[in-house]
Amino acid sequence: MWNLISLVGLGVGYDITERGMELLRECDVAFCERHTMPVPEEYIKTLEEKSGKRIETIGREDVEGEDPLVLKEAKERSVCLLCGGEPLAATTHISLLVDARKAGIGTEVVHNSSVFSAAAGKSGLQQYKFGKTVTVSFWRKNYEPTSPLLLIEKNIGGGMHTLVLMDLDAELGLMDAKLGLGLLRKMEEKEGRKVLPEKVVVLSRLGYPDEKISYGKISELVEGELGEAPFCIVVPGELHEMEREYLELL
Amino acid sequence: MWNLISLVGLGVGYDITERGMELLRECDVAFCERHTMPVPEEYIKTLEEKSGKRIETIGREDVEGEDPLVLKEAKERSVCLLCGGEPLAATTHISLLVDARKAGIGTEVVHNSSVFSAAAGKSGLQQYKFGKTVTVSFWRKNYEPTSPLLLIEKNIGGGMHTLVLMDLDAELGLMDAKLGLGLLRKMEEKEGRKVLPEKVVVLSRLGYPDEKISYGKISELVEGELGEAPFCIVVPGELHEMEREYLELL
Repeated sequence: MWNLISLVGLGVGYDITERGMELLRECDVAFCERHTMPVPEEYIKTLEEKSGKRIETIGREDVEGEDPLVLKEAKERSVCLLCGGEPLAATTHISLLVDARKAGIGTEVVHNSSVFSAAAGKSGLQQYKFGKTVTVSFWRKNYEPTSPLLLIEKNIGGGMHTLVLMDLDAELGLMDAKLGLGLLRKMEEKEGRKVLPEKVVVLSRLGYPDEKISYGKISELVEGELGEAPFCIVVPGELHEMEREYLELL
Repeated sequence: MWNLISLVGLGVGYDITERGMELLRECDVAFCERHTMPVPEEYIKTLEEKSGKRIETIGREDVEGEDPLVLKEAKERSVCLLCGGEPLAATTHISLLVDARKAGIGTEVVHNSSVFSAAAGKSGLQQYKFGKTVTVSFWRKNYEPTSPLLLIEKNIGGGMHTLVLMDLDAELGLMDAKLGLGLLRKMEEKEGRKVLPEKVVVLSRLGYPDEKISYGKISELVEGELGEAPFCIVVPGELHEMEREYLELL
C-alpha cells in the first residue's frame, strides 16, 4: 500500500527479532536474499508459518544493479527483505539503501547479530581488540597472495586479534577451515617466517544448532574434527588472563 | 527447576529476538544488567508485560566478583539475564560464563546487534575495513592521553575506519560527542599535527526511536545539533565511492 523497504537481519543464529517479525507480518511482499549469507530452507519455512507470508528467495541481481526486482516492487508496495546476519554488513544492502533513498522510497533496517560481533564473543575475546578483518582466498595458478598473513602479522604486532573469513567461490563453494589454515601456513612458508600463534580458534556453523568451536594448536586442528561449513577463524593476538581462561574452557 | 544461565542480548535497538523471549518466558527468575549498556525503563516494562515475568534490575557486582547474585540463584533455578546490545561484548558477561562453567552451570547466549556492527552499518561503512576501536577518556589534571588519536592515525594509515567510543565516568556520566570531538582536536594540538579527516560521523542514541546520525565537518558538528547521549563517533579512513555516496545521503 505504501512504499517502504524494510531490511530485516536474521542474525547469526537465525533468530528474528520482534520488530523484524512485525515488519514481515505487515509487508505486502517478502523476499529473502541468501546469496551474501546462507539461510537454512527450514528456517524460511518456520518464518512462513509464523508470519503467514510466502517468502520468495531472490538473487543478488534482484537487489542491486540495473532496476532490480526489490526496488521495482517497492515503488508500489511495501517490501520486506530478509537476510542472514546483520543486514548492513553486506555492500549489496548498503547499495540498495542508497538506491531506495534516491528513488524516494522509505527504508527501515532491523539490525541483528553479525559474525563480526558474535565470532569475537563466542571466542571470549574483546571486540575492541580486533584489528582489520581478513579474508583467505583460494590460491590459483599465478595467484598466491600472502596479504592475509601480512595483515594478521600487523594486527598481532599491535596486540590485536584477527577475524579470518573464508572465501566463497562460485565453483569451489565455501572454503573449508582446514584448507584456510593450510593456506595460512603456506603463506608463512612463502614469506619465510613464522607469524601465526601456536593456537587459534576455529568456529563452525556459528549460530546453528550444531555450532562447533575449537581452540587448539594449528597442527592438531587440521587433523581433528572441526564440523561443517560455514567456517571462520579467529587468530588471537595478545591474550588477557580472562580471555585465555575462556578459550581454555572451550 | 534446572540450573541454567541464559544471557539474552537486547540489541542496540532494544528489540529482543524470538529465542530471547522464549527463554525469558521459561526462566524461573529474570534480571536485567543495565550497567554495561543502558536499557530504557520503558522497554523493561514492555518486556515484563509480554513475558509475564518480573524483571529485576541488578548491578555489576551481582554479575561478577565474589559469589555474585546471578551465580547464587543459578545454583538452584534457571536465570535469564537480559542486557543491552550484544551480551558478549562486555567483559563482565564473559567472566560470568567462565564462572558458570566452572560451577557446572549450563549457559546459553542469545546474540543480538552490537554497537560494533550497527555503528558501521548505520554509517554505510564496511565492517571489515574497521581497525581497532578507540575510547576517548575524560582529560584530568596530569592525565591528558593522546593515545586514541595515535590509534586513529594508525588506522587511517592502514586505510581503515575507526569506531570511537565515549568514556563513561561514575561522576561525569557519559561523555558528550562534542566534548569527545573537542578532546580529539586537543590531542591534535598536543601532538602538533593534523590527523583527523575533514568530515566524521556522529551517532546519537543508536537504535532508539530518536536515533540521530550526523555526517559533516568537525568544525560544524561541534556547533550543530547532534542529539542526546549515548554517542559514538566513526572516523572514516579511505572511502570507497559507495561509502562516500551513502554518507553524503545521511
